Amino acid sequence: REPLVLLTGPCQLESLDHARMMAERIAAACAPTGTRFVFKASYDKANRSSLGSTRGLGLEEGLGILSKIGSEFGCPTLTDVHLPEHCAPAAEACDVIQIPAFLCRQTDLLLAAGETGAAINVKKGQFLAPWDMENVAAKIASTGNERILLCDRGTSFGYNTLVSDFRGLAVMARTGWPVVFDATHSVQQPGGQGATSGGQREFAPVLARAACAVGISALFIETHEAPDRAPSDGPNMIPVDEMEALIGRLRAFDALAKSA
Amino acid sequence: REPLVLLTGPCQLESLDHARMMAERIAAACAPTGTRFVFKASYDKANRSSLGSTRGLGLEEGLGILSKIGSEFGCPTLTDVHLPEHCAPAAEACDVIQIPAFLCRQTDLLLAAGETGAAINVKKGQFLAPWDMENVAAKIASTGNERILLCDRGTSFGYNTLVSDFRGLAVMARTGWPVVFDATHSVQQPGGQGATSGGQREFAPVLARAACAVGISALFIETHEAPDRAPSDGPNMIPVDEMEALIGRLRAFDALAKSA
Amino acid sequence: REPLVLLTGPCQLESLDHARMMAERIAAACAPTGTRFVFKASYDKANRSSLGSTRGLGLEEGLGILSKIGSEFGCPTLTDVHLPEHCAPAAEACDVIQIPAFLCRQTDLLLAAGETGAAINVKKGQFLAPWDMENVAAKIASTGNERILLCDRGTSFGYNTLVSDFRGLAVMARTGWPVVFDATHSVQQPGGQGATSGGQREFAPVLARAACAVGISALFIETHEAPDRAPSDGPNMIPVDEMEALIGRLRAFDALAKSA
Amino acid sequence: REPLVLLTGPCQLESLDHARMMAERIAAACAPTGTRFVFKASYDKANRSSLGSTRGLGLEEGLGILSKIGSEFGCPTLTDVHLPEHCAPAAEACDVIQIPAFLCRQTDLLLAAGETGAAINVKKGQFLAPWDMENVAAKIASTGNERILLCDRGTSFGYNTLVSDFRGLAVMARTGWPVVFDATHSVQQPGGQGATSGGQREFAPVLARAACAVGISALFIETHEAPDRAPSDGPNMIPVDEMEALIGRLRAFDALAKSA
Repeated sequence: REPLVLLTGPCQLESLDHARMMAERIAAACAPTGTRFVFKASYDKANRSSLGSTRGLGLEEGLGILSKIGSEFGCPTLTDVHLPEHCAPAAEACDVIQIPAFLCRQTDLLLAAGETGAAINVKKGQFLAPWDMENVAAKIASTGNERILLCDRGTSFGYNTLVSDFRGLAVMARTGWPVVFDATHSVQQPGGQGATSGGQREFAPVLARAACAVGISALFIETHEAPDRAPSDGPNMIPVDEMEALIGRLRAFDALAKSA
Repeated sequence: REPLVLLTGPCQLESLDHARMMAERIAAACAPTGTRFVFKASYDKANRSSLGSTRGLGLEEGLGILSKIGSEFGCPTLTDVHLPEHCAPAAEACDVIQIPAFLCRQTDLLLAAGETGAAINVKKGQFLAPWDMENVAAKIASTGNERILLCDRGTSFGYNTLVSDFRGLAVMARTGWPVVFDATHSVQQPGGQGATSGGQREFAPVLARAACAVGISALFIETHEAPDRAPSDGPNMIPVDEMEALIGRLRAFDALAKSA
Repeated sequence: REPLVLLTGPCQLESLDHARMMAERIAAACAPTGTRFVFKASYDKANRSSLGSTRGLGLEEGLGILSKIGSEFGCPTLTDVHLPEHCAPAAEACDVIQIPAFLCRQTDLLLAAGETGAAINVKKGQFLAPWDMENVAAKIASTGNERILLCDRGTSFGYNTLVSDFRGLAVMARTGWPVVFDATHSVQQPGGQGATSGGQREFAPVLARAACAVGISALFIETHEAPDRAPSDGPNMIPVDEMEALIGRLRAFDALAKSA
Repeated sequence: REPLVLLTGPCQLESLDHARMMAERIAAACAPTGTRFVFKASYDKANRSSLGSTRGLGLEEGLGILSKIGSEFGCPTLTDVHLPEHCAPAAEACDVIQIPAFLCRQTDLLLAAGETGAAINVKKGQFLAPWDMENVAAKIASTGNERILLCDRGTSFGYNTLVSDFRGLAVMARTGWPVVFDATHSVQQPGGQGATSGGQREFAPVLARAACAVGISALFIETHEAPDRAPSDGPNMIPVDEMEALIGRLRAFDALAKSA
């Protein structure tokens, strides 16, 4: 079995310079262990808790940056889409299209994404059981696209809290599709700060270790050079200068899980 | 305070004839108590559990039928939208636009709906706390549209199960917006039948009574002449021939809650 | 069907004088509506969140007081037990023995309580489904004692939070045993203040109205002349001077639910 | 940091011969990796779902067997207690006394257990947050006994289901007390078979790997030579002939988590 791949980058695109800086630092953090990564960033935060929060650079500028990052760094790129008509342009610029958790039941979005032929990373809705993802994947597969990743980013647990059920990784793996664990959104506290979401950054490495021990194909983990100043998801992102050490640790758990 | 209004109809449009028959039977069920109703039906089930399930008549035919029902029966009509560009046509045909629970955080959809000037019924996401709805309503209100209804349709509780927290009705009422309780989706068992959702129809009247006692502006309740043959949501819809008696009972609780 | 009975009193016994004062005020609050009540108080809080909190007067003094209240006021009395050997003395002093929610699966306690022949009010564990209570009741009924009440006081919902699922009242009623709703513990926030439990007193009347509309045999509701100074459960108790008005409102919902 | 210790054995004592056979097979499974184990078995299942289920051998016979196992095999032993007066005799026969999850808030039981001076393994109530366990431990520590273990066996998640929140292991570790993960009760489905609890044995090794990766002092795991014929907890116990391989795997994750 292949070693762990990272889906990583800042939550949202800030500028070409920022994306370059982040890609460089991520590449450097991955180099010692030879870890492959997909550069992730959003061009539009279409479902912020409240209207006052920054949405991002928009489709055109955002995809342009992602396209440049891909060719400059020779790495695959990933972005998330919110409307069916964004799938085709996103798939031209990026290698992986991501379906947000809230939207994982929107049939038209899943079909439009599938039809691009790009790899599709679908996040499990916080309101879904892991076994419900088989139907979600089947919608995509109906387009003939079988490059599907199923990603767990936590399940609703009371109010403003998510819990990660690691049985779910095993349940989703039974579908045959590669399974991804999203370590940074799993420690989000949705709406936990009133107008924005809170997060428990300190637990992301804890849950990531657990996921690697259970066995996953890829780890989704957002990172930033200064999370507390990031325009979104700061409370749950990992500082980029902690990434190299973290990746090293996780690769060891991943290798152990995949041995024998 | 005004008596309870019903938002009611079949889950999805089946044909003009079927919609007429349902509107007639609903009007008859409401007549003895003089209960006002808004006729509800969907032109597209855009987020079915699985691809194999019926989606409906589509935007054009569906809105045409709703428009006819409105003028023939002199009742307001409601339909749900899934994409920003559907809001304007839906608002031309209907009086109330509904934002589905899964989509209640999609900023563009909320803004597009708000900009139509139609009344907007937003369902609380199963993944949201009741106090999170204040931010959702504020997105709509930012368009200048203050005809907002906040609707509870249950909250994620473990897997394939929803629970109705009646404190939530009181919490949402503090926003000042009218509060709606969705009695039939609150007893849904999402994904509970594998490829489709299950439901516990027998508990819808129980929860509806509780909601009326707590105090609500409107009750959302789907109905069908033969729920077990309905193309969607059969397990949780109320047979239309039980509606008159149910409405009578609920109006008594509503009147009591609104007295003194 | 019989009108609603109240199981009410302060959370814990403070002194004979305090118990008398509370019984008087409760009797006065119940008189205008002719509402029957059972006087409830605990002689020992055996499961406080932390060791620093007051436990109460103890078995002997506590039962002595409850016995006096019963004969002076001509009302039945209720107390909760924590160990099998407390059941017999508690049943000599009181008419109703209560099994705490945490202990509702302890077979020896259920059997010892049942064997006294007293009426038994069993609280549903926060960790149990409503349908699990059938097995709990069967343990008591195995002693030949069929004076069993099943009481809902909320279900675990995430951390430090309970939710009241009103389908549960209907599910428990199917057993044939009378169903009680505990309005004040249902709004408890277990452990929510660190070393003690918090509560949302303002929602107790809301949930009580909902329960009466669904239909219950009795309502459990704790009260105090100054909840914020009470030695336990202050955050969720109802001030006794609000009880008369509340009882009046609830009796109206109860009567409506039991009509027709 | 010390390698992982196992708390392991059959759910309930069946006979001296059975206990001997199990202790032998467990010792054999642990030998290749030099894993230390504490032999666990219950003399009384005091909180079965329903009355019809076997309770066990009782205090006297049970403790006699545990005492013999301890001296014959030279291993520490553990048993769970349900009443304060059982603590002293249990502590004479066994090295570790266990407080069941349902009883983890019963002050008298915690104090009586603490006063024996034995090591105390307290299970986190399914209804408690991990941070609530600090108050629980403080009750025991008030007796001067600081040999305390905090054990996670899952948290209520909807009905008849538990979820393991691996953040909780880290939260409980902050108290300074050693943390235990109970892999077999965490996959229990309480009340899930109507009159008895169900379980998902296949996920116990999955969750155990995750817990070892997060970092724990001990792993609690019940085992039986033929789980499907065991008098209790069969659906979640691990067949003893799978234990050696499992222990080997887990020790590797434990060593990795404790390296560096």
